[in-house]
Amino acid sequence: MFVAVFLLLITLCAQGGNGDEGQEAQRLGHVSVVIAGGTGDLAKKYLWQGFFQLYINQVSSGYTFCFYGGGLSPKDKGTPALFEILKAVSCPSGVPVERCAVLKEQYLRLAQYRQLKTAEDYQDLDKHIKQQLQEEGMVEAGRLFYLSVPAFAYADIADKVNNACRPTTGAWLRVVLEKPFGHDFRSAQILATQLGNSLKEDEMYRIDHYLGKQVVSKILPFRIANKKFLDPIWNKYHIDRVEVVLKETLDAKGRIPFYDEYGVIRDVLQNHMIEVMTLLTMRLPKNMSNNQEVLQNKLKIFSTLQPLGKKQAVIGQYQAYNAEVWAELNKTKDYVSRTPTFAAVVTHIDVAQYDGVPVVLVSGKKLDERVGYARILFKNDVFCVQNHDSIHCKPKQLVYYFGHGNLQYPAILVTKNLFKPALIDSEWKEVTEHKDIKVLGLPISDYYVQTPIVQKDAYAELIAQIFSGRRDNFISAENLLASWNLWTPLLDSLASSFPRIYPGGADNGNLLDFRLKGREISYISKAVIIPPDQVGGSSTDNFQIMQGKYRSADMVTAWTEELIERLATDLQAAAEAVVSEGGTFHLALSGGSTPLALFQRLAQHHFSFPWRDTHVWMVDERCVPLTESESNFHLLHEHLLQHIRIPYYNIHPMPVELNQRLCVEEDGGALLYEREVNKLVSNSSFHFVLLGVGYDGHTASLFPGDKVDGHGERLIALTESPVKPHQRMSLTLRAINRAHQVAVLVMGKGKHELVTQLSRVKDSPNKWPVTGVRPTSGKLIWYIDYDALLG
Amino acid sequence: MFVAVFLLLITLCAQGGNGDEGQEAQRLGHVSVVIAGGTGDLAKKYLWQGFFQLYINQVSSGYTFCFYGGGLSPKDKGTPALFEILKAVSCPSGVPVERCAVLKEQYLRLAQYRQLKTAEDYQDLDKHIKQQLQEEGMVEAGRLFYLSVPAFAYADIADKVNNACRPTTGAWLRVVLEKPFGHDFRSAQILATQLGNSLKEDEMYRIDHYLGKQVVSKILPFRIANKKFLDPIWNKYHIDRVEVVLKETLDAKGRIPFYDEYGVIRDVLQNHMIEVMTLLTMRLPKNMSNNQEVLQNKLKIFSTLQPLGKKQAVIGQYQAYNAEVWAELNKTKDYVSRTPTFAAVVTHIDVAQYDGVPVVLVSGKKLDERVGYARILFKNDVFCVQNHDSIHCKPKQLVYYFGHGNLQYPAILVTKNLFKPALIDSEWKEVTEHKDIKVLGLPISDYYVQTPIVQKDAYAELIAQIFSGRRDNFISAENLLASWNLWTPLLDSLASSFPRIYPGGADNGNLLDFRLKGREISYISKAVIIPPDQVGGSSTDNFQIMQGKYRSADMVTAWTEELIERLATDLQAAAEAVVSEGGTFHLALSGGSTPLALFQRLAQHHFSFPWRDTHVWMVDERCVPLTESESNFHLLHEHLLQHIRIPYYNIHPMPVELNQRLCVEEDGGALLYEREVNKLVSNSSFHFVLLGVGYDGHTASLFPGDKVDGHGERLIALTESPVKPHQRMSLTLRAINRAHQVAVLVMGKGKHELVTQLSRVKDSPNKWPVTGVRPTSGKLIWYIDYDALLG
Repeated sequence: MFVAVFLLLITLCAQGGNGDEGQEAQRLGHVSVVIAGGTGDLAKKYLWQGFFQLYINQVSSGYTFCFYGGGLSPKDKGTPALFEILKAVSCPSGVPVERCAVLKEQYLRLAQYRQLKTAEDYQDLDKHIKQQLQEEGMVEAGRLFYLSVPAFAYADIADKVNNACRPTTGAWLRVVLEKPFGHDFRSAQILATQLGNSLKEDEMYRIDHYLGKQVVSKILPFRIANKKFLDPIWNKYHIDRVEVVLKETLDAKGRIPFYDEYGVIRDVLQNHMIEVMTLLTMRLPKNMSNNQEVLQNKLKIFSTLQPLGKKQAVIGQYQAYNAEVWAELNKTKDYVSRTPTFAAVVTHIDVAQYDGVPVVLVSGKKLDERVGYARILFKNDVFCVQNHDSIHCKPKQLVYYFGHGNLQYPAILVTKNLFKPALIDSEWKEVTEHKDIKVLGLPISDYYVQTPIVQKDAYAELIAQIFSGRRDNFISAENLLASWNLWTPLLDSLASSFPRIYPGGADNGNLLDFRLKGREISYISKAVIIPPDQVGGSSTDNFQIMQGKYRSADMVTAWTEELIERLATDLQAAAEAVVSEGGTFHLALSGGSTPLALFQRLAQHHFSFPWRDTHVWMVDERCVPLTESESNFHLLHEHLLQHIRIPYYNIHPMPVELNQRLCVEEDGGALLYEREVNKLVSNSSFHFVLLGVGYDGHTASLFPGDKVDGHGERLIALTESPVKPHQRMSLTLRAINRAHQVAVLVMGKGKHELVTQLSRVKDSPNKWPVTGVRPTSGKLIWYIDYDALLG
Repeated sequence: MFVAVFLLLITLCAQGGNGDEGQEAQRLGHVSVVIAGGTGDLAKKYLWQGFFQLYINQVSSGYTFCFYGGGLSPKDKGTPALFEILKAVSCPSGVPVERCAVLKEQYLRLAQYRQLKTAEDYQDLDKHIKQQLQEEGMVEAGRLFYLSVPAFAYADIADKVNNACRPTTGAWLRVVLEKPFGHDFRSAQILATQLGNSLKEDEMYRIDHYLGKQVVSKILPFRIANKKFLDPIWNKYHIDRVEVVLKETLDAKGRIPFYDEYGVIRDVLQNHMIEVMTLLTMRLPKNMSNNQEVLQNKLKIFSTLQPLGKKQAVIGQYQAYNAEVWAELNKTKDYVSRTPTFAAVVTHIDVAQYDGVPVVLVSGKKLDERVGYARILFKNDVFCVQNHDSIHCKPKQLVYYFGHGNLQYPAILVTKNLFKPALIDSEWKEVTEHKDIKVLGLPISDYYVQTPIVQKDAYAELIAQIFSGRRDNFISAENLLASWNLWTPLLDSLASSFPRIYPGGADNGNLLDFRLKGREISYISKAVIIPPDQVGGSSTDNFQIMQGKYRSADMVTAWTEELIERLATDLQAAAEAVVSEGGTFHLALSGGSTPLALFQRLAQHHFSFPWRDTHVWMVDERCVPLTESESNFHLLHEHLLQHIRIPYYNIHPMPVELNQRLCVEEDGGALLYEREVNKLVSNSSFHFVLLGVGYDGHTASLFPGDKVDGHGERLIALTESPVKPHQRMSLTLRAINRAHQVAVLVMGKGKHELVTQLSRVKDSPNKWPVTGVRPTSGKLIWYIDYDALLG
């Protein structure tokens, strides 16, 4: 009976004919859906099915539709291929069979194949649509282009759509794109620029089908619905770690030409997994329906993520992969692909709330099981005096289970020792009867479990959202570039690394297990299968710290990392010696980029450094406000001070800004600092002064030719730099040479020439200021890395 | 054969006779050991056995000995009692039977009973010893008094020893005391003073027999021997928590007169358990044989322990206890003892290294098993991709196992996923063959296990150390007072609490399990068995936050804790509103004691407060250096700033000290601060100003009669307080009234009268400065607790 009603509402564009439209239809207008790549794999598997679902949902809403499958083949080849696909479209559960059959028939009639290759093809399509509209007397609502084509074709198609196939005024244009959106920051940016030439940002829908998965799309709603339970525990004091895991059993066979270019990080971490991660950790929007707020909050997480480098990742490659590469890429057997098929990456979010909480992303092919989940593991805050089997003695976790694995269905699970979660919405149900299985280490009966009543496909979900113009589950250009900005340095640094080879499946054993160590990550087992071309290769892993003499003072030399470790250790020992005697340690630190690594080392590894009894002074400062990034103090603050617990009083920035002006002699800033030193530092002798040396031989802010030895009794002076900012404030040689210990840190190949030259010259402070560093009764040690020493 | 040799070395003081001494004996001298309470329980069980061990060890060392068992009974009663005990002394393993028999015979002959009651008794003893020395032509080496008597007798005996029984010049006096050393800080201090009148500190050996247990005494040596493994993981980044656990199955029956006075905290936590805890966490001494350094490092831990209050403890009492009290103390059935027989206490060490690491002390009677251990549980830093049964996927822990429990012998255990520890010394051995048991959740085979080759008694160990003058395993007076200083406030605050009643044994189930929540601790299950006298009693637990009007402005009122929670929440909401719009939040905070609770609440509970985008300003400041404890800024620093992560630049102390002098008008400090406000705070309008109010109606540092409304356009002014320090710097009413939001916090019964009075007066800022607080376009809210509002 209702079939008749539906028939009134549809337009039969495939035949160019039309039906009788209802009034509603005339009101809301006509929508043209174009799937470029309409006979491709993705279209076949998901898209036509998704649009059928859309058609079913919208058929009585007042819109009319035409569906165009576009392709490069001529019509006579494309049409049968398309209808082969369309015939296979299935009826979604919940739709009565009879009704579905009618709707499917309509859907088929509304669909047609078109060759979309040249500019003319798009013009023709445009003409066709306009003709249709005119013939049927319809108003155009919008055009939806789904580009299910290789990414290299995006810009070209977007250009053609823009030039020839924009909808009539007042109607919307929505162009759907799917990853890969570039393969690094630069290519993504180029693509974004190219697309931006043809399309406005709000016309683009960058799809990540993971965001359409039912569980993923409910991460935010679940967090909101259970805010009262989660708020008190959603912080570093309660969260032990966050994991996003996507394990596959499949290999990359058959997809190698694509896969070998991309690898697991570009394939899933850069998009699906980091997106899930942002949903887990972003600040909750005040209003879920405010797309802009959701996207902005998401974006903020990226700006707080600590940079990723080699030490934040481990990578692997399944053993058979290289043979697949030889076969599919026609390579000879001496070719070694470094493309990772497994990766684990640890990220840290640099906000107080998540301080120190590792977020781990793990994905790989040829693992022991297929499963995807995000888990928030909470800290064990319970002490069980007796009877350790009770539920509250067990781990506490919240699991967003995407599917597969032991459970086999999508679900959100909360251990019963956490809280009983509210049901997200009426489309979800609680599961109370379970098979006897374990999920992430615990029997399923230890969880509260909720699952969607009807399982829905991700593409159908997202297509519905595109149709309704909802953007929050799509990737904004800013978001995309922020993501590449995060991943590109890691990908670059891994480009020269060899992945660990793993056999695949259960045989992997513990080969891929890894350890989190502070902000770093490493494989646990040392058993590395060395790639064939590396056998007998040289290794830079073995190192040695050597001691010697330089300019008749002590010298320590090593590879950079070990040198910094040694300097940090020496510094701590010096501090401890003073503090253990009940004293206060006075440390003067230099600016510039050289000491950065030391600051980071101290912040991240020297937890027992006696900061509480240490005063930090500046060796020199640039005459800029302390809050500016050029300021030496700012650098020190960002890389050291903000990471340690040091009393406010113990921090002594140089007073370069007084009376709202910078380094004016009359304001007496240098004298002020000198008085502070005299007041707090016994005998005005710092315990430790860290210096660097510039290419011109300057040290502190004492520059060649700037009457370096002419400061008389002064400990602090205003000086002139040959480079901007010219004005500086600096410890004088007199202040430096009163110190108990002075370390001069010299690193990098760029300093090799200087190091050689300095080794030959006599002390001449006005020409080579650093040669004036001669502690009167203290100790001078040069810390020079191999690069600087040996070139 | 060697028996003859030994006989040469001994003096037979019991008979007043002597043997032929060897030359060695003459060289090292004579030692008198006096056990006061020599026929008591402790002496019977441990001391005579311990001294026998000493005798065995020292018999050929060159010393001679006499042993006196002192008691209150006359000689004819005491002598047989003593010899009953002495005869039961057993031969330690490792000593050949024949040799031991001879030595035991000697030991018996060297021992005698003496009545030690009056001053004369001690004089007689002294005379006796001197006579002996003379008769035998011996030099005196020292006298060792072991006071195995109730603590109330210590001072009296010490006095008698001092007056009548000191050794001859050049010989040492060592007086051994055992807990209880007082029952709180004051009584401990009194006892210390009393003892100090008679004995020098280095003459006193305060024994804690736990420190003589083999495993406990090896905590430091183990840490030193395994420094290279432990150093990198001995910090907050790796340690999940530290537990010291002492579970007993016994009850207190028969000891109630003592026990009911003391309870579990005084009985074992204040001494044994906190001592173990200091050994686990103290800084390693550079030199283990430097007793002074060991004791000093130990002492330092106390100074870094966060104060203990009610919220850091849960207490329990086994169900049968009260009936035992009725019986043993002759109480009627309406008597309810609150003495805890179970306690769990969480402490935090306030140094960066251990920041956030809970240290849990748990002990109780009538639990399910007898076991004692200290465990360092490390964080799970491993991610297992597959095969979660591998050892490295399991918990990592280091366990000092004192004895009993599943293992049944003392041992140090390290899980194999941590490291293979070095053997402490040659007296320890590795255990590699195990029964199939679990130790703290893991199969014994998951551990490296080491144990002493020969098990030794704690008292014998400590007696040997006393004899050799080694002090590091004894409690110094400073240490003792530091411990009481820690425990006394907790004991005081618990005095009025009812312990949770538990049935005892396996029936306890999960009744005593507790949760760590930040720095607090609470029972998990709510099932409290209410003590009989509490049924129907009133509860102050139910609270309500009420809103109303006060002085025609908004008012929030509640019990103190909820009021502070509400204010903190309101403050965070205000901050978030500003920051979420991309702004910077400007917060001005008052000094004084009222806001302390707020500062602490913010530091400990508001982890997501947007400090990074918040600037903190001072409402007022006392003209004292910022580093002094009187300074408002100092208070803010100690209770808030040092606990949060806020950029250095965002902190704005008032410049009360300029040109090395305080608050001199010409130095222009007020103007300087005003300029800073003008520069950074938009429109010079703070977002939130927190005020208090003094008994005289002053607010900020605006005092009655100090021309409060006479500051004109100035935002900051120097003012005069009627109380010291008189000079102040303060926001003016003009600055306060420009704010977007002003909160006035008033708490405590002491403010009730003021609150009443203020509710009646009209605005008159010069008389009642707080009445001048009338934000021009901002919001004013009074936060008044019930005590202040209702009296």
